[in-house]
Amino acid sequence: MNQGIWAFGPPSLLMAVMVAGIHNPLVVSLCLSVLAGLGTYKAIPLVSDVFIAHGRSGKDLLKEGRPVIPESMGAIAGVVYFIVMFVFIPVPFIGWFRDSEYALADFPHNKFAQFLGGLLSLMSMLFLGFADDVLDIRWRVKIWLPLIASMPLLMVYCVTYGGTDVVVPIPLRSLFGQKMLHLGIFYYAFMAALAIFSTNAINILAGVNGVEAGQSLVIALSIAANDFLQLHRNPARAEAHLTSLYFVLPFIGVTLGFLKHNWYPARAFGGDTLCYFAGMIFAVVGILGNFSKTVLLFMVPQIFNFIYSCPQLFHFVECPRHRMPSYNSSTKLLEPTWCSLSKTGKLGRLMIRILRTFRLVHIRRDPKTGEAVQANNLTLMNLLLVKFGPMSEPRLATFVMIVQALCSCLAFLIRYRLVKFVYNEVEDNRN
Amino acid sequence: MNQGIWAFGPPSLLMAVMVAGIHNPLVVSLCLSVLAGLGTYKAIPLVSDVFIAHGRSGKDLLKEGRPVIPESMGAIAGVVYFIVMFVFIPVPFIGWFRDSEYALADFPHNKFAQFLGGLLSLMSMLFLGFADDVLDIRWRVKIWLPLIASMPLLMVYCVTYGGTDVVVPIPLRSLFGQKMLHLGIFYYAFMAALAIFSTNAINILAGVNGVEAGQSLVIALSIAANDFLQLHRNPARAEAHLTSLYFVLPFIGVTLGFLKHNWYPARAFGGDTLCYFAGMIFAVVGILGNFSKTVLLFMVPQIFNFIYSCPQLFHFVECPRHRMPSYNSSTKLLEPTWCSLSKTGKLGRLMIRILRTFRLVHIRRDPKTGEAVQANNLTLMNLLLVKFGPMSEPRLATFVMIVQALCSCLAFLIRYRLVKFVYNEVEDNRN
Repeated sequence: MNQGIWAFGPPSLLMAVMVAGIHNPLVVSLCLSVLAGLGTYKAIPLVSDVFIAHGRSGKDLLKEGRPVIPESMGAIAGVVYFIVMFVFIPVPFIGWFRDSEYALADFPHNKFAQFLGGLLSLMSMLFLGFADDVLDIRWRVKIWLPLIASMPLLMVYCVTYGGTDVVVPIPLRSLFGQKMLHLGIFYYAFMAALAIFSTNAINILAGVNGVEAGQSLVIALSIAANDFLQLHRNPARAEAHLTSLYFVLPFIGVTLGFLKHNWYPARAFGGDTLCYFAGMIFAVVGILGNFSKTVLLFMVPQIFNFIYSCPQLFHFVECPRHRMPSYNSSTKLLEPTWCSLSKTGKLGRLMIRILRTFRLVHIRRDPKTGEAVQANNLTLMNLLLVKFGPMSEPRLATFVMIVQALCSCLAFLIRYRLVKFVYNEVEDNRN
Repeated sequence: MNQGIWAFGPPSLLMAVMVAGIHNPLVVSLCLSVLAGLGTYKAIPLVSDVFIAHGRSGKDLLKEGRPVIPESMGAIAGVVYFIVMFVFIPVPFIGWFRDSEYALADFPHNKFAQFLGGLLSLMSMLFLGFADDVLDIRWRVKIWLPLIASMPLLMVYCVTYGGTDVVVPIPLRSLFGQKMLHLGIFYYAFMAALAIFSTNAINILAGVNGVEAGQSLVIALSIAANDFLQLHRNPARAEAHLTSLYFVLPFIGVTLGFLKHNWYPARAFGGDTLCYFAGMIFAVVGILGNFSKTVLLFMVPQIFNFIYSCPQLFHFVECPRHRMPSYNSSTKLLEPTWCSLSKTGKLGRLMIRILRTFRLVHIRRDPKTGEAVQANNLTLMNLLLVKFGPMSEPRLATFVMIVQALCSCLAFLIRYRLVKFVYNEVEDNRN
């Protein structure tokens, strides 16, 4: 293990020398993010045996022989992320930390509090995610965990922005009779809901090698791209988008480092730790950067997957313990899995019928009576397998990432082209 | 589990009504601390089976039949602590959160950042402690974990106080030729060392039912007593001591709630999670309140135990895997344990001889040759057993708490009576 850590000496030194002359925090953040990626990539194989030896492992159900894979590796990605962030925090404030340049009285405590509040929420979620992996917390309890974890974040929002007014879209203005709508406490409820949604949404769209980290990577890259775009388009809000970049770049680093081991055939699983952590990053960035609506636009596949899953999640339709695709050992391909419709009530049948109208579900019928007996499990991955036929595991993971990327393109189109039909130019620049 | 949670409704409501009219954050903090204590007390039995079912358990080595006890319960105390703290944070700032009273521009972001930084360090340590319980991290790695966790705290210190000058004690002034000494980076090194020391020190003085939580409770009570004293003596520094109280009161609450289950015969173990968390509380309070030297005074038993253990910890004298007292099933009392001196080198023998001069070690000799063959394991608890004879487990835990309390009394004497021989009155008021 020590050898692995010492291997970091030369690149770190080289980078330190390179960065020493550069006083741009964004460049430092980029360099640290590269180091974070390398660190995660190197650390995971070093600790895999320790994780397995202490029972932090799971079986890969979609492989022959169901090999044992170390689980909860999101904890390693998280720890590397935090080390990098703790090292980075002083950088944007370097002028104040060097005694002479600025007076400490002018120190931007509000900006500093943003970092601390964001990291506190993230650390809370990392801890709760790891605790969930270890203790298998019940659904009805754990769905509320992000609410606790997001509280520092909401407080930081309250004292830095505090605004709870939203611009009413032009077509709806006659309805509300005003341009701005004061949401008050409901705006906080919306942000808390965003945190609860985004942490759980990554967790629901999971189960295939590389798919949790893959979707998170695409979302994080989209957020970073949007930040860079806004830095040029909207200098007045540069500060907020820089903060967002400082949070999201190291995340891209550790996710890439992790994905290298998590991709098919996986040698590491992220566990709930990774899903919760990734989800919280998106909530933190959206809330601190004050562009939570845009972040939601990047999560359309997760929103779709969640709404699509609702008939099963709320037990209108039978919901088996696992809804992942199944592995066919003769074809070596993944196939969709099915739920029985025999015990489905009236409301469940209505939902299935609506989904059928939009061609979003595949039904298997009894060949004799013609009665619907099975429907594919209502997840995005099963739907892809139903639509495009059985495929290999890495292909399915790639497919999900492509869907995610296409949705991001659509989000950019909505955000930068179609928005003018909904808001004026000036309002558009707000977030 | 739900029933247990619902049981909180009536007392919470009653308290909310009581507190609603009181605008003193300290009173709110006290009320919340009582709730935190009740919460921890109620929650632990509810989750014990879950912890055991997921392998978070250990054998109680000092009991007949070595019963299986749920471990890492410090996590529950920690989670309750954080929920209460997250709820509490807005309270001292309530004037700003109610739109009308104060302008948001005047918001004391620096004070807010203190809370966030302190909680971030605590949460980091809670996570790392739990990870250590689950993964059994190696000593040489984990001894540095508090360094990572304390970084946000040091940054907060830097931007809120920033002072690294210490007052030179009067007798030493001629030596340094000045009244103030600028320590610079060394002051930060001292604070980081305090964090590393205090987190590990609680962990070393452990192994008997109730002793980890017991010593933490006495230290926390001493800190709270000192805060209350200073609030009256030194109004200029009231703010710092109030912050300290806000952090330490809920900790006293959860520790009492936990101790009720951890006291002999224990039905819950705290694990490293509790020890690290408790240690970090003391570091946070000392650093944020800017009275780290006083906190160290309250930890004299831990300092003694650490220095006393050094010959074994650094392998000058043989160090067995466990150094706790052993249970004698015929007398039902705890007895000291021994280490062999047969392989002890020259330096180790010298250390034992020095300890013997101060009557701090008991030696067993070969009856024929008269040669020293065994010494008691060098821990405070073994020393107490050697000096006062075998005793029952709860009696030993009480003994440690009494030693801790006596040392606190001594600390108050030094801090408030003897200090005038070392510092002037005015300097004394500084911290």
